[in-house]
Amino acid sequence: MPRYKLTIEYDGTPYCGWQRQDNGSTVQGSLEAAAQAICGVPVRVHGAGRTDAGVHARGQVAHCDVPKELPPGRFRDAINAHLRPQPIAVIDADVVADDFEARFSAIKRHYVYRISNRRANLALDIARSWRVPRRLDSDAMHEAAQRLVGKHDFTTFRDTECQAKSADKTLDQLDVIRDGDEIRVITSARSYLHSQVRSMVGSLVWVGEGRWSADDLAAALTARSRAACGPVAPPDGLYLMRVDYP
Amino acid sequence: MPRYKLTIEYDGTPYCGWQRQDNGSTVQGSLEAAAQAICGVPVRVHGAGRTDAGVHARGQVAHCDVPKELPPGRFRDAINAHLRPQPIAVIDADVVADDFEARFSAIKRHYVYRISNRRANLALDIARSWRVPRRLDSDAMHEAAQRLVGKHDFTTFRDTECQAKSADKTLDQLDVIRDGDEIRVITSARSYLHSQVRSMVGSLVWVGEGRWSADDLAAALTARSRAACGPVAPPDGLYLMRVDYP
Repeated sequence: MPRYKLTIEYDGTPYCGWQRQDNGSTVQGSLEAAAQAICGVPVRVHGAGRTDAGVHARGQVAHCDVPKELPPGRFRDAINAHLRPQPIAVIDADVVADDFEARFSAIKRHYVYRISNRRANLALDIARSWRVPRRLDSDAMHEAAQRLVGKHDFTTFRDTECQAKSADKTLDQLDVIRDGDEIRVITSARSYLHSQVRSMVGSLVWVGEGRWSADDLAAALTARSRAACGPVAPPDGLYLMRVDYP
Repeated sequence: MPRYKLTIEYDGTPYCGWQRQDNGSTVQGSLEAAAQAICGVPVRVHGAGRTDAGVHARGQVAHCDVPKELPPGRFRDAINAHLRPQPIAVIDADVVADDFEARFSAIKRHYVYRISNRRANLALDIARSWRVPRRLDSDAMHEAAQRLVGKHDFTTFRDTECQAKSADKTLDQLDVIRDGDEIRVITSARSYLHSQVRSMVGSLVWVGEGRWSADDLAAALTARSRAACGPVAPPDGLYLMRVDYP
C-alpha cells in the first residue's frame, strides 16, 4: 500500500479548521472524502499541522496510505477533480517511504502573518489579511520580536486549550518586514504551541502601537502566564507556508 | 467647490468594469452612489482608466467635485462607510487643484498581470490570477517582451471595439518575472489601447509555451492586424497598480 505525501493549499475561510469534526466542514474531512471517492474505501489523511478555523495554507503537508497503485500526478489530479469547487488544492503528490509521517518527520514549519496597516477597509484582501488602522512601528516590532527567538517556555503565548505536554519551544525566526502598507511577520520553528503565532503577532502589534516596549514583551514571556499575553491576532492573516523534512 | 483626488482599490470580480452602465453594477456607479449619499446631490466620479469587467485595482485614481467642504480624511471614511460591504475601498483622498484631471493629467499607468503557472486549481487566488497549467519559459517571455517596448502601432494588441483615434502608443516597460510558480508581467506606459495589456500577456504566454518565438511576436506587432494577435488573457490576473501625475 503506497504512502503519498501531499502538498496542499487552501483558503481557510469556509472551514472549521484542518481537523476532522463531526459537525462542520474541515480541510482534512474534505480531503478524506475526495480520497475515499477515488479509492472506494475510507482513507485517513494525516496533516503536519492542525491549522485553526480561518487560517490559510500555501504549503500544508499531509500523508495518506492508499490501497491503489496510482502515479502521483494522477492521484493529485483526481483529488483536485473531486475537491472542486472547494478552495482546496493539492499542489504536489509524491510517493514516500512507509515511515514518513507528515507530522512527526517535520523538522521545520514556516508561517507568514499578513497585516494591512491602513484605515481603509480591505477590498482585495478581505479574509486574507488583518487590517490594523493605527500606524505601526514595524522596526520596533522587529526589534522586540528578537526577544522571543530561541528556546523559551511559551506559556504566555499558548492557548488555554493547548494540549502539548511541555510549553518549551525553540523559535528559529521571527522577522517583521514592512512593504508599503503591508507588514509581514515571518516565523519558523520545528513546532509551535496552539495559537502561538497569533498570540505573538497580537502582542507585537501592541509593541507597534507603542503600547508595549520590547522590555514589556520580554516581561510577558518570562511571566509564563496566559494573562500576560496581548490580544490574539485573528486567523485571517495567517498562512502555513511550508513544512521542511530531512 | 473643492476637487478631490481619490486613490481606490477594488476587486473587479463582481463588477461589469469601471464605467457606469444602465444595467449591471460598476465601480464608478458604486462610488457615485456613495458620494451622492454623502452630498445629497449627484456627484460624477472621473477615473484615470476604464478597467474591464473582472479587472482589479490596487491604485486606480479618480477625481470628483464635491459641493461640500469636507476634510479629505473624513470624505474618504464616509465613502468607505457607504461602500461597505462592497469590495471597493478609497485608500486616500486629497484636495487637488481645479485643473487636475484623473484621466488627462496622468503621465504613467502601472499594471501587473499575475499568472499561476501550475497544474493544480487555485485555492487562495481564485479570480485573482490566471492559471496556466503548461510550464512557461519566463526568460523567453521576458526577452520577447522587449520587442514590444518603445513606440509602436499596437493595432495587433487592440480590442476591435477600441475607440482611440490612433493605435500609436509608447510602452515604457514590459518585464516578465518568475517567483516560484507565479509569473508577473509588469508594465508601464502613459496610456494603453483597449485590452492592450491582456492581449500582450496572452501572446507572451504563447511565447512561454514555445508556440511562438520572439521573432513571431515581433512579426505579430508589425502585422498591425488584430488577426495576428495571440489569445487575450482573462481579466482575473490584471491589476491597475498605480497612476503617476506630475
